[in-house]
Amino acid sequence: MNEGKSAIIVGAGLVGSLWAVYLSKAGYKVTIYERRPDIRLAEISAGKSINLALSNRGWKALDAVGVGDEIRKIAIPMTGRVMHDTEGNLTYQPYGKEGQAIYSISRGGVNAKMMDIAEEYGNAEIHYNHECLSADTKNGSIRVKNSETGEVIDAKADVVFAADGAFSAVRYNAFQKLDRFNFSQMYIEDGYREILLPANEDGSYKLELNALHIWPRGRFMLIALPNEDGSFTCTLFMPHSGDENSFDVLDSKEKVENFFKTTFPDFFEMMPEIGDAWEDHPLSSLAIMRSYPWHDGKMALMGDAAHATVPFYGQGMNGGFEDCTVLSELMQKHNEDWDKVFAEYSVVRKPDGDALQDLSLHNYYVMRDYVADPDFLLQKKIEAKFSELYPDKWMPLYSMVTFSEVRYSDAHRLGMQQDKIMKDVMASTPNIEEKWDSPEVMEQILEKIG
Amino acid sequence: MNEGKSAIIVGAGLVGSLWAVYLSKAGYKVTIYERRPDIRLAEISAGKSINLALSNRGWKALDAVGVGDEIRKIAIPMTGRVMHDTEGNLTYQPYGKEGQAIYSISRGGVNAKMMDIAEEYGNAEIHYNHECLSADTKNGSIRVKNSETGEVIDAKADVVFAADGAFSAVRYNAFQKLDRFNFSQMYIEDGYREILLPANEDGSYKLELNALHIWPRGRFMLIALPNEDGSFTCTLFMPHSGDENSFDVLDSKEKVENFFKTTFPDFFEMMPEIGDAWEDHPLSSLAIMRSYPWHDGKMALMGDAAHATVPFYGQGMNGGFEDCTVLSELMQKHNEDWDKVFAEYSVVRKPDGDALQDLSLHNYYVMRDYVADPDFLLQKKIEAKFSELYPDKWMPLYSMVTFSEVRYSDAHRLGMQQDKIMKDVMASTPNIEEKWDSPEVMEQILEKIG
Repeated sequence: MNEGKSAIIVGAGLVGSLWAVYLSKAGYKVTIYERRPDIRLAEISAGKSINLALSNRGWKALDAVGVGDEIRKIAIPMTGRVMHDTEGNLTYQPYGKEGQAIYSISRGGVNAKMMDIAEEYGNAEIHYNHECLSADTKNGSIRVKNSETGEVIDAKADVVFAADGAFSAVRYNAFQKLDRFNFSQMYIEDGYREILLPANEDGSYKLELNALHIWPRGRFMLIALPNEDGSFTCTLFMPHSGDENSFDVLDSKEKVENFFKTTFPDFFEMMPEIGDAWEDHPLSSLAIMRSYPWHDGKMALMGDAAHATVPFYGQGMNGGFEDCTVLSELMQKHNEDWDKVFAEYSVVRKPDGDALQDLSLHNYYVMRDYVADPDFLLQKKIEAKFSELYPDKWMPLYSMVTFSEVRYSDAHRLGMQQDKIMKDVMASTPNIEEKWDSPEVMEQILEKIG
Repeated sequence: MNEGKSAIIVGAGLVGSLWAVYLSKAGYKVTIYERRPDIRLAEISAGKSINLALSNRGWKALDAVGVGDEIRKIAIPMTGRVMHDTEGNLTYQPYGKEGQAIYSISRGGVNAKMMDIAEEYGNAEIHYNHECLSADTKNGSIRVKNSETGEVIDAKADVVFAADGAFSAVRYNAFQKLDRFNFSQMYIEDGYREILLPANEDGSYKLELNALHIWPRGRFMLIALPNEDGSFTCTLFMPHSGDENSFDVLDSKEKVENFFKTTFPDFFEMMPEIGDAWEDHPLSSLAIMRSYPWHDGKMALMGDAAHATVPFYGQGMNGGFEDCTVLSELMQKHNEDWDKVFAEYSVVRKPDGDALQDLSLHNYYVMRDYVADPDFLLQKKIEAKFSELYPDKWMPLYSMVTFSEVRYSDAHRLGMQQDKIMKDVMASTPNIEEKWDSPEVMEQILEKIG
């Protein structure tokens, strides 16, 4: 272990905290600068806190440095989706095979836990209330301001990692000003508002615990993920503007109540106080932010700072954690020659960031429109059947993304090919509803795979 | 005239200076803040100064407020393209009909002239060396710093216009931080380097004066535009990186000389000192920058600040000047109700900004690859013939963009349709080379227009 190696991480969020553990294990002295106060001492802020869904890529990155079990303590398995129609009827769709699940964790809870981990496993020194004012990528130095004392400090290390989120100060203050740095921030038309569905009075859950609940309504949807305390964190995704079914038109308690009563009747029955709870959480926006390259000089962007996405595939955190896996492998491959590590990281990992974003947007349409569509559900059934018969020839897209380590870019490409095959087979088979699991249909798919 | 009306313009560039005249004529007291020193007092900076090509939209916007003749004094008409092949053979292609031309003007010259115009015709007070540090869009105020004295000033007006270029400080410091503001900066793979081809010793031109010269070479190209003093401003566009024909590999005087000798032999003959002149101007990058919306509160983005583009259609300045035309029309339509003016400006003008950018990128391929392609030249000849026969049914894309007031978005859409028709006709007509102007071919096009 080289005592002299040092690293700075900007941001004590999920990715920054985990990456601290990796760097520490590789012998780096890690210093983290975090803009916000220590959330473990303050009340956890309300607001932007859609629950997170941890899946295979996330667990792999956590387990590789021995911290997965810390997170397992606060994670609730969800084995499938439960769709709620306007009559209150439920349809269940498993996410994967028997025993496979994604895991609901609350953002506040996991944030605090990851900071513990950064300190305990990563020996990281975390400086809270330190805002990054500027950065010199070539030099590996940053200028931070202590927002409590007003003091401005210059800090420097062998390598610097910006894991400071979608609105990364390092990216904004340094990377976005670099010649030939590509960047885009594209907001989608839809915003979201969080709603907390409380537990029953006896502390029990008001909905099936081990599932992600969706109320798909075409152009908008409501979802619910379980919390440890019996409550569900629910999120309404809907266009900001528009003459109907938009946040703009829900501008009174009465309109909110009417909207829920008619659109999500079973939800309204569980939570008749929705009109009063409506403004407990702010209306927030959703954006995809792309960058390239992800490094310059001695600095690299990670997680949301590099590839912030919309939350619809539940892969934002998982993809960020996987950045740690990728960077760690490159560190070993190039024996910590950071010029080489960063150059390969940008080139190799960027297509996966792009694919993660494209998949996230695609899954928005799936969740909003298709999960309630009989053709879509039939297609998923046929795929599952075929995949069961020929597991080495077909892994459904959702499983590739969620339960495998297949690169996002490969999963995206394969998924689009599979979708075309399934659409062709379904279109060319009369009465497909009756013989969806017949040898004839399976044979057809097999042929098309070639 | 309402004495109380006030406007701030950030940026005393081409668009800002012209817009000052419009506002002044509408009764506004105009104050301009410009980051750079007064270029009329300093030596005109070398560097990023590709000559500009003024065409119809630009003239229209200038003439509407009576300043076109000021610019005519320094403009050189170019009636067509002259292509130079590797043997030094020349091919001429007119830009439009008899009497139509685009006009070469030097950036430095026109910049200085436009500042004169802003002061004389716009009664604008221009504050040089004032950098915009921040802006409050809702309040209509900006904070500027006098870079000579260090003084920081807050300025406020009824309306504020950011005409401060591709790297707009107002956009960066204010708009890019707004919730739901979409923005992208995408650099193309190619950079450019300017080369000044001097006049002959007797002051005469070394190339045909009234033309834009192109040395198209597939993946890269050299162009030359005439200046008033007998020189030509030449620009080499080429990929930054790559194993051959890239700026990266031209890293010695010898390599530069060899490159010009073998690739642009007729140019090298005129300018054998190219190896020594190579570094007179810096290597620069090219980007497309998109934004939306183009307004917020009391502020609007104009010109490159809203829709910076690559220079290949010669429409950057013209499109910026046309923003003045559009805003001026909306001011009249809405009787200077700026909320309405700005809202309509964003919605109506944005598709034209996008189309201008798409067209610019498209014309890069045209100039680089196609202007030397016999099929392309034949297609242009057929189009010109058809357009001559049926002027009300077909205006070639280049003419729509350059010599008409058709909206960029309409021109782009129509141009793509026309291109498809021409490709179909040419592919389905055997020996098209021989009967390209036959009634049969004309009839076919007529049918396809429908």
